[in-house]
Amino acid sequence: MHHAMQFLSDNAAAVHPRIWAALQAADAPAPPYDNDALSQQLDDAFGALFGRPCAVLWVATGTAANCLALATLVPPHGGVVCHREAHIEMDEGGAPGFYTHGAKLLLADGEGAKLTPASIAAVLDPIRPDVHRVQPHAVSITQASEYGRVYTPAEMAGIAAFAAGRGLPVHVDGARFANAVAFLGCTPWEACAGAAALSFGCVKNGGMSAEGLVFFDESLADVARYRRKRAGHLQSKGRFLAAQLLAILEGDLWLENARAANAAAQEIASVAGDRLLHPVQANEIFLTVSEAERAALRAQGFSFYDWGDGAARLVTAWNSDPAHVAALARAIASL
Amino acid sequence: MHHAMQFLSDNAAAVHPRIWAALQAADAPAPPYDNDALSQQLDDAFGALFGRPCAVLWVATGTAANCLALATLVPPHGGVVCHREAHIEMDEGGAPGFYTHGAKLLLADGEGAKLTPASIAAVLDPIRPDVHRVQPHAVSITQASEYGRVYTPAEMAGIAAFAAGRGLPVHVDGARFANAVAFLGCTPWEACAGAAALSFGCVKNGGMSAEGLVFFDESLADVARYRRKRAGHLQSKGRFLAAQLLAILEGDLWLENARAANAAAQEIASVAGDRLLHPVQANEIFLTVSEAERAALRAQGFSFYDWGDGAARLVTAWNSDPAHVAALARAIASL
Amino acid sequence: MHHAMQFLSDNAAAVHPRIWAALQAADAPAPPYDNDALSQQLDDAFGALFGRPCAVLWVATGTAANCLALATLVPPHGGVVCHREAHIEMDEGGAPGFYTHGAKLLLADGEGAKLTPASIAAVLDPIRPDVHRVQPHAVSITQASEYGRVYTPAEMAGIAAFAAGRGLPVHVDGARFANAVAFLGCTPWEACAGAAALSFGCVKNGGMSAEGLVFFDESLADVARYRRKRAGHLQSKGRFLAAQLLAILEGDLWLENARAANAAAQEIASVAGDRLLHPVQANEIFLTVSEAERAALRAQGFSFYDWGDGAARLVTAWNSDPAHVAALARAIASL
Amino acid sequence: MHHAMQFLSDNAAAVHPRIWAALQAADAPAPPYDNDALSQQLDDAFGALFGRPCAVLWVATGTAANCLALATLVPPHGGVVCHREAHIEMDEGGAPGFYTHGAKLLLADGEGAKLTPASIAAVLDPIRPDVHRVQPHAVSITQASEYGRVYTPAEMAGIAAFAAGRGLPVHVDGARFANAVAFLGCTPWEACAGAAALSFGCVKNGGMSAEGLVFFDESLADVARYRRKRAGHLQSKGRFLAAQLLAILEGDLWLENARAANAAAQEIASVAGDRLLHPVQANEIFLTVSEAERAALRAQGFSFYDWGDGAARLVTAWNSDPAHVAALARAIASL
Repeated sequence: MHHAMQFLSDNAAAVHPRIWAALQAADAPAPPYDNDALSQQLDDAFGALFGRPCAVLWVATGTAANCLALATLVPPHGGVVCHREAHIEMDEGGAPGFYTHGAKLLLADGEGAKLTPASIAAVLDPIRPDVHRVQPHAVSITQASEYGRVYTPAEMAGIAAFAAGRGLPVHVDGARFANAVAFLGCTPWEACAGAAALSFGCVKNGGMSAEGLVFFDESLADVARYRRKRAGHLQSKGRFLAAQLLAILEGDLWLENARAANAAAQEIASVAGDRLLHPVQANEIFLTVSEAERAALRAQGFSFYDWGDGAARLVTAWNSDPAHVAALARAIASL
Repeated sequence: MHHAMQFLSDNAAAVHPRIWAALQAADAPAPPYDNDALSQQLDDAFGALFGRPCAVLWVATGTAANCLALATLVPPHGGVVCHREAHIEMDEGGAPGFYTHGAKLLLADGEGAKLTPASIAAVLDPIRPDVHRVQPHAVSITQASEYGRVYTPAEMAGIAAFAAGRGLPVHVDGARFANAVAFLGCTPWEACAGAAALSFGCVKNGGMSAEGLVFFDESLADVARYRRKRAGHLQSKGRFLAAQLLAILEGDLWLENARAANAAAQEIASVAGDRLLHPVQANEIFLTVSEAERAALRAQGFSFYDWGDGAARLVTAWNSDPAHVAALARAIASL
Repeated sequence: MHHAMQFLSDNAAAVHPRIWAALQAADAPAPPYDNDALSQQLDDAFGALFGRPCAVLWVATGTAANCLALATLVPPHGGVVCHREAHIEMDEGGAPGFYTHGAKLLLADGEGAKLTPASIAAVLDPIRPDVHRVQPHAVSITQASEYGRVYTPAEMAGIAAFAAGRGLPVHVDGARFANAVAFLGCTPWEACAGAAALSFGCVKNGGMSAEGLVFFDESLADVARYRRKRAGHLQSKGRFLAAQLLAILEGDLWLENARAANAAAQEIASVAGDRLLHPVQANEIFLTVSEAERAALRAQGFSFYDWGDGAARLVTAWNSDPAHVAALARAIASL
Repeated sequence: MHHAMQFLSDNAAAVHPRIWAALQAADAPAPPYDNDALSQQLDDAFGALFGRPCAVLWVATGTAANCLALATLVPPHGGVVCHREAHIEMDEGGAPGFYTHGAKLLLADGEGAKLTPASIAAVLDPIRPDVHRVQPHAVSITQASEYGRVYTPAEMAGIAAFAAGRGLPVHVDGARFANAVAFLGCTPWEACAGAAALSFGCVKNGGMSAEGLVFFDESLADVARYRRKRAGHLQSKGRFLAAQLLAILEGDLWLENARAANAAAQEIASVAGDRLLHPVQANEIFLTVSEAERAALRAQGFSFYDWGDGAARLVTAWNSDPAHVAALARAIASL
């Protein structure tokens, strides 16, 4: 499963040296949990990033961030509209059902694993407003999407306006939010404008074990703090999680890393032509490749996931080796 | 809240250099989640420690370890006998209720936060075996207890035999298991003999962010793995958690660290005389001290928690500064 | 278990003829669930009874009523203060944990299974307001209590004021609310003044299968309706539950039945002298009686529950046979 | 919403006289809950019906029956394969998520709301057997289906064999099981052969407030009894629920009632020709009818539900008035 030239996922890539430095600097005596000085800087640091007040909790995983967010937005008897290929639906082992106490994911369609107001409406409109049907209470989207596609600021604003019109708060799964912002060149807020909560990814982008759960609706954060503890996610040495998040914001390391990953993806995409199943915007490449072609690539030392029968997913990371990237581009061009 | 000479808790102490070294050594490319080589060594490493097969999962917190264990042992409609001052009852924000889907903690008494067969029986015997009453499905004890008291091998065997006789599996919260074993001088297995699951503490003993959830009944581990994912505790860079656990076992670092903390506690206890509320066995000291005395200690730079109105809790750690310990002993002697 | 002269419980007594008549009258075609005309009269009928707006849902059991109420008042991570002998703690098979998704019952003391502001405060005050401790979110009391004791209007007002001062809504388990009001001779509202929700008992008082869940805070009822459906308690022929509740209110049948049960209890109590463990106020009698005495009573055909080792509980009902009551009084007097 | 000639649903039809008689006969003193003689006859009565041992619990609603069954079959982290138009997915307000603590419904396709081994396999096969994906733990089908379609004994056996091959127990939602058996003319067991649990409908078939939850795997019933209590569904006067179930089995009233409903449906279907969206097998008729045609029918006094934009659902009951049925048939023929 493990090969020399790694394009399986960004989720196991090395930790960035500046994150390491921040971890070690954090190893001074400090109050436990989130009472340390680093944890208490998070609200301000993310507030500055987004240009508005926010309340930020560190957690160890994107699943925890997503599901804590949903649990604050949706009652147990409610539902969350999301794409049918959303990470919360497909890859979190039912964690949304655990954290929300059984709320339902209401599955919508949309090209590139992206929702649109129309595709959300197609889910909402047939739901009779009575107790026999699970009623929608929130919308969750992924920026960048599970297919590496971004919502433009205009698309984001459209979804936010639509959701607000239906009385539904919006959650953004930003496991690869950095890659989306790096591609869009917009402000961080424009990439998630209107959201009540954002899962701000760090682990896939050079971190070790910290994601930021950012609440733009600060009243939600108080409930989330109780739920974080109750989920066993309040680490006593939380300063090490805060340190990672502060370090990745410092000097825009988050964007620097994402740009590196995105550039590697573009280099590979540039040779892939018609093989591309999706336009490459963030750091994921979905290619039509036959079984024989996949075997040929693997024989050359490239590792990646199959994506169904006739395709593959390749993911670049902040530290993808330029030589490996160039080699992969050549290999794909030669298929 | 944060003073120069720290006796608040071992839960925020520094990370041991050998843990740091192991973390950095783990930063090579590896498969994600628990598919890396380090994670896959855990079963054998703990198996060797306990002299029997076991299945081990890393998690980030003791709360997660305890509650995942309970969730595998107890159905939602069941109950867990524990001490009324147990950490799972008092300090986990209701996490057992979350993980078990509402199972009930059935509160027993016992000196020093320790259960006995008799105190467990006093809870069990009045429970009519009908559907109107929550039925017991497990027993959870803490080794060392919340008052720093240990179960001797004989006491442990007595509880295990009693529980087995009632058909109840035993969970051991071992947040300070190392301190207990270091005090007892017994084998690790003797200190938890008969348990179905053990939460093996690392964070309070020089770790950063990893606890070991050890199943001696291996069939439970498969369910626990699904539940760990569902709780958002399956970290993608799990190799960093495995690394901490392997490092703390290596060369018996866990015992070395615990012995240091215990010795510091004994040094302080040796001057405390009648002030001691509990015999000091692990690394916690509970003292009768008036409000004025507490103020005097704090004025000298010692930090610790009040324990109700007329007492204090002081905790030593693997890295308690000998000078601070000596100073504290002098200060207490001088009160 | 079943004897000729029944004082086991009021919970299995016969259905009152006027309830039967109402059931049969309800068997005309009607819209399903709670869309029928009878269900829609409940708010007004109870509103008239209590002299204030209320929103009322029928459910089949007191457990469902109590737990739906709690689920609207308390988040999963919260707690409910109740007496340690409360029905919700002792006799509902963990249903509060199910309905609230694991909220915790915080157990208070008090003579006669009654809470007081002081006994509630004794639970609340030690709870540090941080995420490690389950925070209180509501108070639940039982009127009449599990020992057949009533809260006077002044006591009720005292609890309501205290709870309001702590920001805690109050739930009243009124499985035997009729017996309390009949004893107190006060208005229905005075017997539960300040409550946000009341479980209004009917089954023990001549009904077949309906309890009224009365919300004085009407906004809670909307959530409760979703939760009722989700709990499988929205019966399609709900008109038969509404019919029972309307019939028991009609012409104050609820008070008439309760007075009959209370009078029977008083007749028995009048001969019990020092044997009484609690003053008899509603329809339950707790007596000190030895094992031999209990055997003697049973040999005469009386059925009742043991209450621990040296006592018995006897319960009268709306239809307790006067001859049986007189016989029981004689038998007790002759012990 | 309520019209003179009722074809809205069988779920609000009158209670059969023999059920009334049984209810009244049950109003003698009896032990509470399910300790009465009637409740204790259920296992034998259903055992005789199905020709094999079974353990039977009464509950008040089909939702409670279905969801208690699922909760015994599926762990919280698991999934249940069902049709995407199944009642448990569409019409139970998320009750499966409540009872199972968040297990996931895995939605399959199939004509007439019926599953096939192939359509179940199409759901199962793409699920990687790892912790990131919710794993299947059971299959739930509806007999007769939500479109009034039956599984033949051969189809039922095929599903059972397939599910057994995948290690999945089968639950049958039999809200209209009587109508299915009446149509099929097979034995009751043949209509649900291989099931671990059956929700045996009574309310829609002349009952008032009782459904039978039949476990063919008796070990499941013990857990279900605890869960029934915990869900507030253990009624203290449970004898009235048992009485309904015994009465509907007595003299095959269940089949007699179902045959009447089915015959009425056939009479209507016989004139509907190409309008029929589904073959009529049980007691539901789905018709293509324009908005204008629906208005015309309603103007003549017929009440029924719209089924999307261009269709209607009509349901007959055990007591559908022959004159109304004939009138409806004429009206449809005249459209």
